[in-house]
Amino acid sequence: MGNADYSYPSENVECSHRVAIPPPQPFTKSFANNLKETFFPDDPLRQFKNQPLSTKLKLGVQYVFPIFEWGPRYSLSFFKSDLIAGITIASLAIPQGINSSFIPPLVYALMGSSRDLAVGTVAVASLLTASMLGKEVDATENPSLYLHLAFTALDFLSHATIVGFMAGAATVVCLQQLKGILGLEHFTRSTDLISVMRSVFSQTHEWRWESAVLGCVFLFYLLVARYCSTKRPKLFWISAMAPLTSVILGSILVYFTHAEKHGVQVIGHLKKGLNPISITHLAFGGEYMSTALKTGIVTGVIALAEGIAVGRSFSMFKNYHIDGNKEMIAFGMMNIAGSFTSCYLTTGPFSRSAVNFNAGCKTAVSNIVMAIAVMLTLLFLTPVFHYTPIVVLSAIIISAMLGLIDYNAAIHLWNIDKYDFVVCMGAYLGVVFGSVEIGLVVAVMLSVLRVLLFITRPKTVVLGNIPDSRIYRSVDQYPNANNVPGILILEIDAPIYFANSNYLRERITRWIDEEEDRIKTSGESSLQYVILDMGAVGNIDTSGISMFEEIKKTLDRRGLKLVLANPGGEVIKKLNKAKFIDALGQEWIYLTVGEAVGACNFMLHTYKPKSTTDQSEPWSNDSSNV
Amino acid sequence: MGNADYSYPSENVECSHRVAIPPPQPFTKSFANNLKETFFPDDPLRQFKNQPLSTKLKLGVQYVFPIFEWGPRYSLSFFKSDLIAGITIASLAIPQGINSSFIPPLVYALMGSSRDLAVGTVAVASLLTASMLGKEVDATENPSLYLHLAFTALDFLSHATIVGFMAGAATVVCLQQLKGILGLEHFTRSTDLISVMRSVFSQTHEWRWESAVLGCVFLFYLLVARYCSTKRPKLFWISAMAPLTSVILGSILVYFTHAEKHGVQVIGHLKKGLNPISITHLAFGGEYMSTALKTGIVTGVIALAEGIAVGRSFSMFKNYHIDGNKEMIAFGMMNIAGSFTSCYLTTGPFSRSAVNFNAGCKTAVSNIVMAIAVMLTLLFLTPVFHYTPIVVLSAIIISAMLGLIDYNAAIHLWNIDKYDFVVCMGAYLGVVFGSVEIGLVVAVMLSVLRVLLFITRPKTVVLGNIPDSRIYRSVDQYPNANNVPGILILEIDAPIYFANSNYLRERITRWIDEEEDRIKTSGESSLQYVILDMGAVGNIDTSGISMFEEIKKTLDRRGLKLVLANPGGEVIKKLNKAKFIDALGQEWIYLTVGEAVGACNFMLHTYKPKSTTDQSEPWSNDSSNV
Repeated sequence: MGNADYSYPSENVECSHRVAIPPPQPFTKSFANNLKETFFPDDPLRQFKNQPLSTKLKLGVQYVFPIFEWGPRYSLSFFKSDLIAGITIASLAIPQGINSSFIPPLVYALMGSSRDLAVGTVAVASLLTASMLGKEVDATENPSLYLHLAFTALDFLSHATIVGFMAGAATVVCLQQLKGILGLEHFTRSTDLISVMRSVFSQTHEWRWESAVLGCVFLFYLLVARYCSTKRPKLFWISAMAPLTSVILGSILVYFTHAEKHGVQVIGHLKKGLNPISITHLAFGGEYMSTALKTGIVTGVIALAEGIAVGRSFSMFKNYHIDGNKEMIAFGMMNIAGSFTSCYLTTGPFSRSAVNFNAGCKTAVSNIVMAIAVMLTLLFLTPVFHYTPIVVLSAIIISAMLGLIDYNAAIHLWNIDKYDFVVCMGAYLGVVFGSVEIGLVVAVMLSVLRVLLFITRPKTVVLGNIPDSRIYRSVDQYPNANNVPGILILEIDAPIYFANSNYLRERITRWIDEEEDRIKTSGESSLQYVILDMGAVGNIDTSGISMFEEIKKTLDRRGLKLVLANPGGEVIKKLNKAKFIDALGQEWIYLTVGEAVGACNFMLHTYKPKSTTDQSEPWSNDSSNV
Repeated sequence: MGNADYSYPSENVECSHRVAIPPPQPFTKSFANNLKETFFPDDPLRQFKNQPLSTKLKLGVQYVFPIFEWGPRYSLSFFKSDLIAGITIASLAIPQGINSSFIPPLVYALMGSSRDLAVGTVAVASLLTASMLGKEVDATENPSLYLHLAFTALDFLSHATIVGFMAGAATVVCLQQLKGILGLEHFTRSTDLISVMRSVFSQTHEWRWESAVLGCVFLFYLLVARYCSTKRPKLFWISAMAPLTSVILGSILVYFTHAEKHGVQVIGHLKKGLNPISITHLAFGGEYMSTALKTGIVTGVIALAEGIAVGRSFSMFKNYHIDGNKEMIAFGMMNIAGSFTSCYLTTGPFSRSAVNFNAGCKTAVSNIVMAIAVMLTLLFLTPVFHYTPIVVLSAIIISAMLGLIDYNAAIHLWNIDKYDFVVCMGAYLGVVFGSVEIGLVVAVMLSVLRVLLFITRPKTVVLGNIPDSRIYRSVDQYPNANNVPGILILEIDAPIYFANSNYLRERITRWIDEEEDRIKTSGESSLQYVILDMGAVGNIDTSGISMFEEIKKTLDRRGLKLVLANPGGEVIKKLNKAKFIDALGQEWIYLTVGEAVGACNFMLHTYKPKSTTDQSEPWSNDSSNV
């Protein structure tokens, strides 16, 4: 079968380059290096290196207070946007824990790194979860679940997931606003579509048409305003001012029609005056200390997770980056300051941040504007908001939420990457029909599945010679690439691990079978060499090495010769340690596919000069290269 | 910063090749093709194609009855090994469900595909689990868990896992034999080291020294026999006959010393005669049908999972392959035949298969030998085994188990691949200190973690020019590779997904920062081009495309030019759909790194002829290529 003479062929071919085995490194050094590359790819302390002390100090202050970093670049046009956004979220803040919307936003504006987060009290749903957790499970167990989810979110959420997740969350929040729109007293605590629909349609007799009409009118107004601004970007201020004008118009309308007596719920009485200082009430020790500590840890972690997740979602939506560490510091300081001034637990709630985002905020200054507006309201304006109808706030929230359902992005995903579209829809449906957690889990599972599929089912492609060159590329991608008679060139596109070594063995065997069938029918010269291009094989494990040993045995049995091209450093090191290089023969490993083909062709022509008449010699033309 | 004139440089450079976008395919076609590649890599029906009917029939029979495939190649030397192994496992079968060791092994020998599996009744531990399952949980729920584990095992167990897992299982089985060795009446049902040790040392007053001495003597004899055979392979028969001679010697010893009255447990009375036919007792319908069905499904699935896992473990240990489908058919038929002949539920128990393996079995013929030996025993020899001490059987099992603790393989793993060693130890410690399931889960988790780490933290390497060639390779692997002034060449070693796009962005930015720092100190010509070698990037998703857009923006801001080399078919297709190619400029994508460097150098020298004095021109030498 033609494996008679295997002298070192590359000696006979002009200028072959040897594949190097990288110089050995001590285990501890390479391990430490790996750890650094894994956990600190951006070398976070880099900018502090070789700097004078004053610069170091400045950088440190900027790290803790990001406002000193972006503050100097702040412009008037930013402020216009932030002013409108700040007043809009202030109008939302007034009925939703007004007292907690004064000090904490100021602290966040100094220390937070998100541009879109609007500070406010924790959503009721979260607190319900927290109180349930506190009762039913061990406090030390579930925070870790939440933290786990939050940290998983940090690395395993793709843009596709965020698009689906935001749209799902927006849908859920819209559904929750049905309570306000329809003027319902009782409402389900579940968030999924089916529970909400059941709750809404089980009490049709409770629906208040006055409230619903008012809500729809204002929603229509807000949507029309937005539509106008998207059509004519110069009219941006119409859309931006719409929520505020809605609040004012709604309040005036209720004041004159006395609609609050006809089923339209209003904010009602607000206590005047700023928050009292509460630092003197803090009591450390005492019999309730452990309960307080436990509740504090649970609710704190939930609030932190919610805030980071919301901030990160908006940052990914807008394609910028926030620093989880800075966020943690900001949330912590914000709540410490809050606890000194009679504030409730605060974080970055999703709906308020969405309104902020939608009103066009640029930086955390919108939080400062909100804090000042809230302060003025607390001091002077509480009576004004007595007649503000809640349904208008619901309409504002719904309108903001509809802006988060980015169906164009979903269409874009479908066009570019079908699997990303599936992940996006998985996240959306999971959130809408299950819960936020289910949506996240579905998206993460689908995403991990994709990675595992890539590894367990790597692509193997046949390479051919690009005409007039010594370049070898996939014949699928380059239909004009020619295969070389007597030689089968395969490229493996993934690291070779236990999880794919069986698959690769079977797939490579099938490639060879198919090639031999093809040759039989076409009457070309018989197959003699199988070249594996290892350029894309990043790593290999012991199962992968066994796979190579088996393939070599199979090929030997069939009278074929295995040739490796371009193995990487990690791969060649392990093949060497496992003595596979000795078994294969050092002379059958080449630096490039071109050199391997050249050597094989040399052997074919020197020792078996058959059927060489009409065969082009792709390696004789030296016009191109790697 | 020198991005003044970007005319199409490749027109000016001799012979550049264009990167092709693969021809579009309809979605359904590519989807169907992907499914086939994913689930049927070996094209299982291939051998049936284009064959005459008689060949198809023969292949079909061989598929269902593998004995017709390997039978014709069976030789006398195989039979000698199988005979000894068969008699050895028969001596184990006699006290452990003798009646079930006659018909089922015959069926398995015809239909099974494992060479090492010895058929026997389900281990007591499994049945306890089954009865607990049946009581405590829904029958339809947990089989899926077991099947899930079994199928996970099918693809996600590496050789390293099997080495650790087998050693762990062997340790656990050895620990269980302490009951027999010490002659204990009561013993824990837990299998982990700590429970067993607690159980053993809490009843030191129950230890029977006669039993222990007998056990140790025979264990010593078995180990010495094995040691002799490993030292002198010609003395293989000593080791092979040792278990059988132990049984005979032990029985004679007990018979003459009446040791059974001094704490040495013996097999005792065995009912004479072959199994009665039980097919007439089968009753379909009736009030217990549903309970029977439920129990049947649960225990059946557990037995199947155990059998396949054991068979597969030994096949991976010996590096051959078994077919899960054939195993399922064989186990099913074996138990149907068993139910007609008064047999208990049978599978391939671990301990008996280990003894079979250790006794040197070659094929499933050892099961036939066992069946015949059992038949002869049932018909004529039951009184002979009355005096066989159980402690001898324990010694045989321990000796077989010690043969499965392959510490040389563990050392080999440590030398070649540290991570594989960690997986191996994880499986071992999980099994020994937890349970078989925990060991499996630990190993699978560690293995999946490795795959995820590979994807989330891909390697990026700097490429340099191999002297006297136009080849560019990692400077870590090839220390003699030279970097090209003004150009940074990076290779990305993994597909670009959401999970690594952030990491890659940070890492690439850091490479550029470090390169610029290096240039600043060394005084070379400033950095102008960043070439990304995409040859090893198998796929990309929408997050990855955003990453490229961001990198391009960053580079533009710094006055650098991004150049791509050798993007694959999938990647270029998606970049094209996302309009990134238009944004980058078609002329900045090259087929090889060499051509990209050539074009960049041409631009550098034509438009900015500075600091070219002492600069070698790696692309001017055309002696080598891809």
